[in-house]
Amino acid sequence: MNALGIQLAVELFDCDENILNDQRLLEQSLVEAATNAGATVVDSVFHQFNPHGISGAVIIAESHVAIHTWPEYCYAALDIFTCGNDIEPENIAEEVKYVLGADRMHVSRILRGVTVGEQERSYAQTPT
Amino acid sequence: MNALGIQLAVELFDCDENILNDQRLLEQSLVEAATNAGATVVDSVFHQFNPHGISGAVIIAESHVAIHTWPEYCYAALDIFTCGNDIEPENIAEEVKYVLGADRMHVSRILRGVTVGEQERSYAQTPT
Repeated sequence: MNALGIQLAVELFDCDENILNDQRLLEQSLVEAATNAGATVVDSVFHQFNPHGISGAVIIAESHVAIHTWPEYCYAALDIFTCGNDIEPENIAEEVKYVLGADRMHVSRILRGVTVGEQERSYAQTPT
Repeated sequence: MNALGIQLAVELFDCDENILNDQRLLEQSLVEAATNAGATVVDSVFHQFNPHGISGAVIIAESHVAIHTWPEYCYAALDIFTCGNDIEPENIAEEVKYVLGADRMHVSRILRGVTVGEQERSYAQTPT
């Protein structure tokens, strides 16, 4: 089934709470994980909340990687959206899981723009 | 069921292709939609791709709103992640749908941090 994009909703449990509250490390880790997976980083924005928790997004040429952390629960919600066939978003998830020291990970995989992709494919198959 | 966050994967079809390629309007629209829904905007980053298409993310105190557009397919992938009980993410989706002139919208709703929420609730119910 064709799709324009793949989105992973990644649940990371039992992480290192200190890492979940380290803005600089989180930003660096997401940028590196995206780059290592073959993505092209365009820009990023991260924000530290008071008393704890960080939200951030890395815009990549292939869409985005975002994270929200709850250090008080040792939990992070990672969101990976990629388009094209050159990147395995699962590789980004695995690298971030490792950096955060997560004991458990649950991944939901969502196809985006499927109808669009199907239309495009059916057009391509129609003789002109 | 308790959850730390709610994520909406919003498919927007048959949008106005000119709007999908207007970076300034898209950023303004997402910021306004988030604000109108009661969110607190912290920062935003948007990028225009060549020859067409825009990616952007708005970091809100309650998580994020992100968009990726494919003007050539009149399609946009909207991603809304909110935490707390004060915001209805569906309101953000509806406002962006209207601004983009989308004829069709499909919304997938994902609960985030459910296990964490359930653990927290069970702790709260345990007499000490």
